[in-house]
Amino acid sequence: MKPQVHFITLGVDDVRAARKFYVDGLGWQPAAEVPGDICFIQVGHGLILSVFDKYALEGDIGSTRPSGLGTTGMPFTLSHNVGSETEVEAVLEDARKAGATVLKPAQRAEFGGFHAYFADPAGFRWEICFNPGWSVGEDGTVRLEPARA
Amino acid sequence: MKPQVHFITLGVDDVRAARKFYVDGLGWQPAAEVPGDICFIQVGHGLILSVFDKYALEGDIGSTRPSGLGTTGMPFTLSHNVGSETEVEAVLEDARKAGATVLKPAQRAEFGGFHAYFADPAGFRWEICFNPGWSVGEDGTVRLEPARA
Repeated sequence: MKPQVHFITLGVDDVRAARKFYVDGLGWQPAAEVPGDICFIQVGHGLILSVFDKYALEGDIGSTRPSGLGTTGMPFTLSHNVGSETEVEAVLEDARKAGATVLKPAQRAEFGGFHAYFADPAGFRWEICFNPGWSVGEDGTVRLEPARA
Repeated sequence: MKPQVHFITLGVDDVRAARKFYVDGLGWQPAAEVPGDICFIQVGHGLILSVFDKYALEGDIGSTRPSGLGTTGMPFTLSHNVGSETEVEAVLEDARKAGATVLKPAQRAEFGGFHAYFADPAGFRWEICFNPGWSVGEDGTVRLEPARA
């Protein structure tokens, strides 16, 4: 697993309130969004901050905890993107061998890609993702095709 | 405030256990570290993942909550670096006007720089930081002088 973070996802109760702060308040521009559900903002070279409905985030992870807040109570994930479905499986296995807890085995994702989730020893959750609709240009600009948005 | 994240900080109970996972397990190389206290790993162009003792993290924010876990129960922060002390103050004021809650007014930081913390409307905490010991090379490599490390 390469040391790379591609998405920082914040799970929030109210995506519109978060959007009001980041987009209307701070003036940051969405790279893509689904109003009320998710808003993607580029915050670095090849790096996206996602503000996501926290229950939808838990649904994506497949958490079955009634609280809807995962293993640590933190509605927060980091995503590491790879180039193929096979790589998702290989990276997940490497992480498991390193001591991670698999939360969601590698599988087709609702948005159209292929992904898995694990928790690090402290409970921080990582998504390993192959997203054919995601690409990063030479200058670091992230492009998100409608499939993901 | 520019849409930029420079540090993702995970507050953990056991920095050595986290290091064992990320460094020994995944093979990621620390850019700098203070054993048992903090470990910095480059995870993108100009982007650092910090694994930090969670009580030291709360101390840095100046949280006085007995739980030591801040406003949301999440031992987690994002940092946005700027080029001067004046910019720390200006960005904090912009964030406040946009609806942020100031958690730590702009002030000298223990590590030698100058910083402030705010919480977004959902409670996610951001550090605004001027760190003279931090720089990013043309190729995105982050350099951390001993002051911060």
